[in-house]
Amino acid sequence: MNTNSVPWKGINGGVSAPVGFYACGVKSGVKYKGKYDLAIILSEVRSHAAGVFTRNVVKAHPLLLTQKHIEDGQARAVIVNSGNANACMGERGDQDAWQMAETTSLELGIDPSDVLVASTGVIGQPMPMKKIVPGIKAAVAEVKSLQEQLSLDNCNCIQGSQAKIQAAHQAALAIMTTDTTVKEMALELKCAGGTVKLGVMAKGSGMIHPNMGTMLCFITTDAQVESSRLKELLQEATDESFNMVTVDGDTSTNDMVLMLANGLSGVRPEGEDWQRFSQMVKEACCAMARAIARDGEGASKFIEVRVSGAKDISAARTIARSVCSSSLVKAAMYGQDANWGRILAAAGYSGASFNPNQVDIFLNGLQVASQGQGVNFSEDEALVRLTDKDILVEIHLGDGEGEAKAWGCDLTHRYIDINADYRT
Amino acid sequence: MNTNSVPWKGINGGVSAPVGFYACGVKSGVKYKGKYDLAIILSEVRSHAAGVFTRNVVKAHPLLLTQKHIEDGQARAVIVNSGNANACMGERGDQDAWQMAETTSLELGIDPSDVLVASTGVIGQPMPMKKIVPGIKAAVAEVKSLQEQLSLDNCNCIQGSQAKIQAAHQAALAIMTTDTTVKEMALELKCAGGTVKLGVMAKGSGMIHPNMGTMLCFITTDAQVESSRLKELLQEATDESFNMVTVDGDTSTNDMVLMLANGLSGVRPEGEDWQRFSQMVKEACCAMARAIARDGEGASKFIEVRVSGAKDISAARTIARSVCSSSLVKAAMYGQDANWGRILAAAGYSGASFNPNQVDIFLNGLQVASQGQGVNFSEDEALVRLTDKDILVEIHLGDGEGEAKAWGCDLTHRYIDINADYRT
Repeated sequence: MNTNSVPWKGINGGVSAPVGFYACGVKSGVKYKGKYDLAIILSEVRSHAAGVFTRNVVKAHPLLLTQKHIEDGQARAVIVNSGNANACMGERGDQDAWQMAETTSLELGIDPSDVLVASTGVIGQPMPMKKIVPGIKAAVAEVKSLQEQLSLDNCNCIQGSQAKIQAAHQAALAIMTTDTTVKEMALELKCAGGTVKLGVMAKGSGMIHPNMGTMLCFITTDAQVESSRLKELLQEATDESFNMVTVDGDTSTNDMVLMLANGLSGVRPEGEDWQRFSQMVKEACCAMARAIARDGEGASKFIEVRVSGAKDISAARTIARSVCSSSLVKAAMYGQDANWGRILAAAGYSGASFNPNQVDIFLNGLQVASQGQGVNFSEDEALVRLTDKDILVEIHLGDGEGEAKAWGCDLTHRYIDINADYRT
Repeated sequence: MNTNSVPWKGINGGVSAPVGFYACGVKSGVKYKGKYDLAIILSEVRSHAAGVFTRNVVKAHPLLLTQKHIEDGQARAVIVNSGNANACMGERGDQDAWQMAETTSLELGIDPSDVLVASTGVIGQPMPMKKIVPGIKAAVAEVKSLQEQLSLDNCNCIQGSQAKIQAAHQAALAIMTTDTTVKEMALELKCAGGTVKLGVMAKGSGMIHPNMGTMLCFITTDAQVESSRLKELLQEATDESFNMVTVDGDTSTNDMVLMLANGLSGVRPEGEDWQRFSQMVKEACCAMARAIARDGEGASKFIEVRVSGAKDISAARTIARSVCSSSLVKAAMYGQDANWGRILAAAGYSGASFNPNQVDIFLNGLQVASQGQGVNFSEDEALVRLTDKDILVEIHLGDGEGEAKAWGCDLTHRYIDINADYRT
């Protein structure tokens, strides 16, 4: 993100950066000994809340519960574990998800329907509730103690607190599975009535695909935004960020993006402020999406596919995702092979219509195809450019104004290593 | 194929097994020195002809020409090269495809519109016509000499001829690219009026996916079948065979299945004979489809996914293909990991609707999930069963009568080796 050209700025911290939010992570023992694996996000007050969920027919138990709890557009806490997806477990799975919400609500003294639950990890294994329940209790105790130390009365102190930032960082660590990088950020935007802040943390590495791969993202803000508007914004932001990431074409049972707006900044962004706020949310989601693609399982390269000149935005997105998902394109990028024919072929089978005789293709700025045909480029020059860790595939069509970006990574030996033996 | 339970039987040979068909392969030098890379199939007389073609928006030049030439439902010869796909080459590509048809027609003394052209290999490289044209001349000379040696008058001699069988085998070799096995077979069926024969050869290993991956298949028969009926049969056979194979999710620009029926057996299968004949064609296509999946690039295991109890055949096919295409399922099979959660998740994101709480899953006969949940199976037993080279994934749904089979292979380190550096 180029902070020079945007109205917001990056600040320290993650999901607890906005006023009145707290977060922490604990080691409950579900994942591996000594790893953070259970996170909580708490708002001082009930927040407007919105969610976007997996389109997989098979939905994990916590996801189904969260869909119910978010129906009223309100929430106060999110409880998340990694290491076990709590998916495909029948009634027991529903009970375990419920117990996670109930335990959290009892410990916090709030309504269980104000608790949202998310899980990520292996499918079809019983949730080890004997570890999870004490974990939740420890997490609530920690988040409460943070809250006590840093009361709302002392706002500047809250923002400055290293302890609060550190605790949110542990929350971001606790939601990771095969992720190799922590994904969190915080931004602030000056509006007419004052400053609003945005915090975000995400996880995702394998099982990533358009329409949400196992991918969790939690967004907090202290702006005043009612839940219907929040929902609309979150869907738009998801469509142009997380739904444009693909690592391996597999869509998980557990994906969700949740956003909580507690209004504690006292600022309601309107008019141009609303436009800027929306852009900030979208940019934060795109930054997380890129971070997920960059951390793709086994990835050695980050790939951005930019499509322009498509007949509309939907065609542009379809083509960008298709190219970014192609195993052959991904393997070619791994091999630093400027095999543009595979790129054109992947665009061609995407399902979107376009004129193949008007396609120009560039790889890291080097034109490799013009008007649907190969151009005489230097293979040596191409190899040099493809040695880069970041690959930009530009596809210019001649059909209209539709533009889109998709993000992914190359397909490597390491991907096979990771996924050939995940459970054992 | 269990030959005990079917009315047809396997016979020696490939596409030249039916009466009045000849085929051979030559080494034109397009692929590698000393490799067969150019094949011709010739019928003594004009044949009824039908084709099924890639649904990729980007279509190779020979494919576009063949679509034109087959419009009248008639053809006499097929000319095929491997090593160069003649795709994405603009006007020059159209001219080169036309020159292949024209050269073949001039050498054979037939109408150019009776010549069908197919190519497979790298995309976006100019077709080396200086090698192809002499190659075509050599191929026609060889096929003519075969034809002279074995005149139609002496029918028994034709069938017995080792030279004819050997030449067809060379044709099957000539259409291979990354294939590691030759794919050809011949069958015969006794009908009321006499015996009809079927010959088939196919290629395909990488870029294989539902809706036709680079996959070529040529089917010959001496049965009397008019072209409209032939077309309908070929589409049905393709839908349940080649369109159910997936290796890597990439659909090529060059795929085609062509079928020629020259009627020289004098037998027109009707009624029950037609049913049997149709079944024989479908079984031949399925056998080729399985052979392609088994020869998937880098494959160490052959995977058959059988779906039953889907709400209809379309849902069954969608689910079977989705599971068979999942990178995570494929990597798990490579790792001999009974990760049924990935199987259920892949069914779930297929786009077909089903009740996830009524799904049973079996891996090589071992039940791993029941009613959408895991069962307590022995991991040791699962490992033993998954050590097998052939993996049968059975998915029983509780929604109806829809059934389908899809074929694929595991995702291995070797796949990456092959595809990271294909062009160079």
